[in-house]
Amino acid sequence: MKIGAIVLAAGEGRRFGGNKLLAKVGDEPVILRVLKALSGFDRVVIVGAYVNELMPYLSNEVIIYNPYYRDGMSTSIRLGLRFFQDYDAVLIVLTDMPLITNEVVSRIVSAYHDGCSAVVPTHNGIRGNPVLIHRVLFPELTRLSGDVGAREILRGRVDVCTVECGPEVLIDIDTVNDLTKVLNIVNTNRQ
Amino acid sequence: MKIGAIVLAAGEGRRFGGNKLLAKVGDEPVILRVLKALSGFDRVVIVGAYVNELMPYLSNEVIIYNPYYRDGMSTSIRLGLRFFQDYDAVLIVLTDMPLITNEVVSRIVSAYHDGCSAVVPTHNGIRGNPVLIHRVLFPELTRLSGDVGAREILRGRVDVCTVECGPEVLIDIDTVNDLTKVLNIVNTNRQ
Repeated sequence: MKIGAIVLAAGEGRRFGGNKLLAKVGDEPVILRVLKALSGFDRVVIVGAYVNELMPYLSNEVIIYNPYYRDGMSTSIRLGLRFFQDYDAVLIVLTDMPLITNEVVSRIVSAYHDGCSAVVPTHNGIRGNPVLIHRVLFPELTRLSGDVGAREILRGRVDVCTVECGPEVLIDIDTVNDLTKVLNIVNTNRQ
Repeated sequence: MKIGAIVLAAGEGRRFGGNKLLAKVGDEPVILRVLKALSGFDRVVIVGAYVNELMPYLSNEVIIYNPYYRDGMSTSIRLGLRFFQDYDAVLIVLTDMPLITNEVVSRIVSAYHDGCSAVVPTHNGIRGNPVLIHRVLFPELTRLSGDVGAREILRGRVDVCTVECGPEVLIDIDTVNDLTKVLNIVNTNRQ
């Protein structure tokens, strides 16, 4: 199965008050941790608001600049999907989830089986990210608009598969306070 | 017919000795003249060596950064083609041809008819650019490698259509001397 990761890094980080993707977690910028978790996967990084700041960290990546980034996440998903339209599935990856690992990504991908329109990771039954979307849903994914993510098209579908994972599939950085929590988790795990 | 323009702006400009795309012709950077000639066409700009310098001029464009730009033009064409793989044809546009106009581009596109695998503009019978490539040739275009352009796959084909245009389809800027010639043409036309 050919899988392409659409790495969403175009946002303004308004609730964070700036570019959260270069904040350091475990001595490494958040975005580079996420890219490491995608090691071995075809991918394209979608940038927008902070293209100039991010570029120096991404010189080995295929990058798409989304001029419509202010119109929300769906515009970035749509551009990434154009790039992977001949693939079997895409993985929609939020770059503000620095605790995601290569093992988690592989676990999500491995959970795919015939008949799944998507694979969603859960923790204690709560749905998280990143989400794998099979090509049967590409047309619906293309029709999304505004600041909504891929999970929007999965509501009420009975063919969505889930896979239980650790808490990392629920932990994202929206605010500076979230970053502090993530740093505490990383420090505790180190000790 | 859905046509997407792949705007090639990733090169290092070695023979020019730097970034030729921001050189001014008729008070306007070369790359912006070319984008103006593509007004009304779907397009994606492929950048590479000079991404940081070019970005401020391209904030309203969909841009793909090609991390393989040192491996030549074919790597940029391939990335652009991924984006337009569901289109009927692509226009391969060299950004160092600042005398191309919207009229010329429309003339090339209008010359397409059933049975053309491509449309190549000519001046006095000499083949120039930009070239329109129909989707029947997308697989071959994807297989190009190294620093070769789309015309490589057209050699010896009997289904390549041509359309006679002005000298602008032959005039590109490879060296500083070429730029001087272009400036002389523009100044003469103004007088």
